[in-house]
Amino acid sequence: MLSEFDLIKEYFQRPQHAARAPVALGIGDDCALIAPTPGMQTAISSDMLVEGRHFFAGEDPLRLGHKALAVNLSDLAAMGARPLGFTLALALPEANRGWLRGFSQGLFALADAFDIELIGGDTTKGPLTICITVFGELRPGQALRRDAAKPGDDIWISGTLGDARLALAGYRLELARPLDAASQRAAAVRMHTPVPRVALGVRLAEQGIAHAAIDISDGLIGDLGHILKRSRVGATLDVDALPAGAVLATQDTALRRAYCAAGGDDYELCFTAPVAARAAVLAAADSVATPVTRVGTIDAEGGLRLVDAHGAPLDLQLSSFDHFTS
Amino acid sequence: MLSEFDLIKEYFQRPQHAARAPVALGIGDDCALIAPTPGMQTAISSDMLVEGRHFFAGEDPLRLGHKALAVNLSDLAAMGARPLGFTLALALPEANRGWLRGFSQGLFALADAFDIELIGGDTTKGPLTICITVFGELRPGQALRRDAAKPGDDIWISGTLGDARLALAGYRLELARPLDAASQRAAAVRMHTPVPRVALGVRLAEQGIAHAAIDISDGLIGDLGHILKRSRVGATLDVDALPAGAVLATQDTALRRAYCAAGGDDYELCFTAPVAARAAVLAAADSVATPVTRVGTIDAEGGLRLVDAHGAPLDLQLSSFDHFTS
Repeated sequence: MLSEFDLIKEYFQRPQHAARAPVALGIGDDCALIAPTPGMQTAISSDMLVEGRHFFAGEDPLRLGHKALAVNLSDLAAMGARPLGFTLALALPEANRGWLRGFSQGLFALADAFDIELIGGDTTKGPLTICITVFGELRPGQALRRDAAKPGDDIWISGTLGDARLALAGYRLELARPLDAASQRAAAVRMHTPVPRVALGVRLAEQGIAHAAIDISDGLIGDLGHILKRSRVGATLDVDALPAGAVLATQDTALRRAYCAAGGDDYELCFTAPVAARAAVLAAADSVATPVTRVGTIDAEGGLRLVDAHGAPLDLQLSSFDHFTS
Repeated sequence: MLSEFDLIKEYFQRPQHAARAPVALGIGDDCALIAPTPGMQTAISSDMLVEGRHFFAGEDPLRLGHKALAVNLSDLAAMGARPLGFTLALALPEANRGWLRGFSQGLFALADAFDIELIGGDTTKGPLTICITVFGELRPGQALRRDAAKPGDDIWISGTLGDARLALAGYRLELARPLDAASQRAAAVRMHTPVPRVALGVRLAEQGIAHAAIDISDGLIGDLGHILKRSRVGATLDVDALPAGAVLATQDTALRRAYCAAGGDDYELCFTAPVAARAAVLAAADSVATPVTRVGTIDAEGGLRLVDAHGAPLDLQLSSFDHFTS
């Protein structure tokens, strides 16, 4: 039988990259050691994914390895921090080689894409649960904080929204007009393999272009709400300007509005920047090949006002996802 | 109903201590930010505790809050790192106020004892699972690494061993001669509320007294085995010299040997230090009011030799705890 230590050695311990200088000591001791770059702050975020809650039972382990790390990197992106490394704590019902192979491949493929290393963690028997803690770094004062939005700021969204929620609706047979197989597959890519917007976040932070940012995990309205609350401002959001995913764009207006505004699982960035920075935002986005769309304005007056393409008020009766009340 | 955000605000978000300088930004943004002390390395460790595996279903939440943080701080202690802060990812079957109050009280009581802050994390619905990641710091070159034991080193143990395992045996009705209620309660304190040996670990590291160290979580023989393997050395361990817990000390020899050598859940330090450092070890231990006992020697020859008080070989047929094969 595969022991805990064999499991770690076989699937999670890789030769240390000499090039990855911040990692002074990786897997295999009581702690990992990192050597922070002098003068930089360390950004830290933890996310926990639970089977049956964040992903379906029987989910493809390769996709799961990708997604577990992606949602954490998305938090670094939203802060504007450069990724350094991560720890993985994993509860598994059994030490299944096929599952471990897939999961570790998905995990390390994304880690390699961002040139970061798994530096430590824990494995145990239990209901399938994945807890990743990521570390990044940034210069003091450059973080894209939720409390930094200013009245008059533009509100921007990276990439597109809603296809992940559309895929989920397809799986759950919630759609009045079901998707064809190709559309379901295309939407599902956004649900299973989100791409964290790290390069964009880092660019916006390091060049001092954006004020506030958050990543969209629970739905735009709820996540933007965190920026509004902590910045003590309001906003007007043009719901029809929201960039719908390629598949969602083919759906009717009501579905498009609902899933763009409050779908969740998007892992795009919502950020605010002064009007004077519009050209800089577009240049930064272009330099990292990430489309961005301007979708509204930060207001001094509190509250979130949803409007349509003509500026008329919209009442979508939407709410954001909450793990304990839904 | 208690929402995810109310839950965090009510039970886990506390006013930021201005005195806790390393925390530049705590709970409430995409990431926490810490400002590492210039020139110091950051030590990081993650542990995951699963209901029914690491603790009984229905476990007192106050004790659980203590233990979840204690086992992580014990990893920092074994590295010799000074604790800075921690993140908490928590899956809960329901947002129960009584449970949350107890858990957060136990957690913060220990955090306050070590003057560290909860800086971020995640909460979700799911089977009760606690994942804590702790951060500490130490000067480069001072870490008590597993690969640093040298032939001729003494092997030392902090505190006492085996009472946690004895309490577990009592709960499981595994004992031929059951404990009386007072003894069971006394032993159970060691099982439920371990005290991480942070002050000792930091002292041994900062004064350069010890070579290698590990904390004893899976049982001394298994954990010492990690030092031997990574340091490419062997050891002779005087099993009768192992410091038995107060309750275990009243039990028969076979039980005392077994639970001292391979009980697990002790969260004491096992460390090695040169013979020339004996007085320094005792002075360091005395200065932090932590008893230490010399229990063996590191050998150039590989393998672990267990001997009794007379130096005669012992074959205990013991193995250390493994999460996937036991």
